[in-house]
Amino acid sequence: MPKKVDHEARRSEIAQALWRIASTRGLDGVSLRDVAAEADISLGRLQHYFRTKDEMLLFALRHINVLADRRIRERLGALAPAAGQEPPPRTVLRECLAGMLPLDERSRIGTLVGAAYFARAIHDERLREEAREGIPKLAELFVSLLRSARERGELAEERALDPHTEAMLLISLVDGLTAYTLLGVQTGEEALHRLDAHLDRLFRSES
Amino acid sequence: MPKKVDHEARRSEIAQALWRIASTRGLDGVSLRDVAAEADISLGRLQHYFRTKDEMLLFALRHINVLADRRIRERLGALAPAAGQEPPPRTVLRECLAGMLPLDERSRIGTLVGAAYFARAIHDERLREEAREGIPKLAELFVSLLRSARERGELAEERALDPHTEAMLLISLVDGLTAYTLLGVQTGEEALHRLDAHLDRLFRSES
Repeated sequence: MPKKVDHEARRSEIAQALWRIASTRGLDGVSLRDVAAEADISLGRLQHYFRTKDEMLLFALRHINVLADRRIRERLGALAPAAGQEPPPRTVLRECLAGMLPLDERSRIGTLVGAAYFARAIHDERLREEAREGIPKLAELFVSLLRSARERGELAEERALDPHTEAMLLISLVDGLTAYTLLGVQTGEEALHRLDAHLDRLFRSES
Repeated sequence: MPKKVDHEARRSEIAQALWRIASTRGLDGVSLRDVAAEADISLGRLQHYFRTKDEMLLFALRHINVLADRRIRERLGALAPAAGQEPPPRTVLRECLAGMLPLDERSRIGTLVGAAYFARAIHDERLREEAREGIPKLAELFVSLLRSARERGELAEERALDPHTEAMLLISLVDGLTAYTLLGVQTGEEALHRLDAHLDRLFRSES
């Protein structure tokens, strides 16, 4: 099926052109024409793949999430656990959260694009629905990591934590840390340091 | 000086027209012409007050911060403390943070406008500088509230907290909670409930 493959590859090239624009100047006033120029194809050709701007934005938004997933999996893969051992829940949780922060050029572009989408999504129900969709799944993953840490006696529970509340607090925290890093209030390293300070209080210190 | 007063009043009317646009459809592609139409004045007249779009955006951004300040002061004023007594640091901190969340129509509009600016600011150094400016002052206020709570023995310090780290975590947390409320992931009430859960762990429970 070479034709289908080409089609997907071309859509992905167009999405990448859109990200380059989104990460350098935002989606503010971006037209199909701008994206065609950036992808170095004609407007007609671009419209062959995406009939409307909304269709293109939706495709590119889904692709960001795929890439973010991949980034987190890579971080987890790089942990090189001791033979046959799963990394502990705190480690997995921390890598997921760190993977959501703008710590290098690639994740910086991802979060810049995400921020551009967020600004559109709050005024666009279809994008909002899409942007919202991943959150419950992410929260569920964090809940199960926190529960597993509790079962292993690794949570610092001076007061009982509600895993769902803590999961939503973590997601919100990383979102805010990302925003202030993109604004230049703090460096990525400072953001990570602050995230770790928060995790320190959720988990028992390793002994 | 009636002329100067009129000038300021007109600038503020224009800023309000800009917010209405920002809160309903974002700043995506908004032109001076759009704002003039929304403010029901001619483009020439608008340009008498703001020569460029950037000048107008900057003015309107400063005004959001003034309004947010006022909202927080009102919340604090409404606490009606016992005669001659200052409200405790936790109460002041909580009212400041709650005042930053989209809990009613007015604060919802404020945060929508803030989100539209954020999306522009990450690609615009001048707006970024402006958006960044308020953060250290806010962090300082939170640090002094946390220090004062510590002096009064009101912090729950199973492990020593670093007030500056905690202040930045609080600011980030509220920012993220706001974003997920605007996206419709949670209601304003749920956001406030989560914020309170976080404050519960920073402070000793009242006895």
